[in-house]
Amino acid sequence: MTATVGNVGLWVADLERSERFYVDLVGLEVTARVETPDVREVILGSLLLAAGEGRPNPSGLWKIFVQVDDAAGTYERLVGAGADPVQAPTVLERFGITIAMVRDPDGYVVELGQLAS
Amino acid sequence: MTATVGNVGLWVADLERSERFYVDLVGLEVTARVETPDVREVILGSLLLAAGEGRPNPSGLWKIFVQVDDAAGTYERLVGAGADPVQAPTVLERFGITIAMVRDPDGYVVELGQLAS
Repeated sequence: MTATVGNVGLWVADLERSERFYVDLVGLEVTARVETPDVREVILGSLLLAAGEGRPNPSGLWKIFVQVDDAAGTYERLVGAGADPVQAPTVLERFGITIAMVRDPDGYVVELGQLAS
Repeated sequence: MTATVGNVGLWVADLERSERFYVDLVGLEVTARVETPDVREVILGSLLLAAGEGRPNPSGLWKIFVQVDDAAGTYERLVGAGADPVQAPTVLERFGITIAMVRDPDGYVVELGQLAS
């Protein structure tokens, strides 16, 4: 099994304000943008900033995204070891990825992502 | 100016338990360990897990560590633009690094680190 942290995602109240801060002032570069009906994301390397669309935003940590070579297998191993399941393995056709989610021992959400081969 | 996210640090209640979860079950590799009188850290690529030593642990996000080429200059730029200062530029001889800390627009702590040249 191989796994690497893809990014750690935080909720922000105002995505444009955060982008100005992290790009214009801190000097980070935007590596990707993602928009879904529920969330907009600005990805700055291993930091993901997310804002909910059209609803009050939560705050704090959202999720730890880990790239794995077998999302279903890793999910089964984690749940088998007692991790709380959050989302069973699901193919996201749009993104060409299979994801699954569990909670870590502190309750943080870990998203396991396996790119389509 | 150049800047890259080094890691995002989360507090955990039990560092050994978290290490078993992320290394033995998820499959991440430990890239560094840091121990100070106040905190122990296990770094797994761009995810940093931290536990306070001998005291109740906080939970949630600790800090976003960003590597910069000019910690003092970046700090001044951020504070000049209205960011709340947390720690003025400080040389940490032990780690060969100059750090400074501010809060981002959501109140998250951003640590700016400049390696000794």
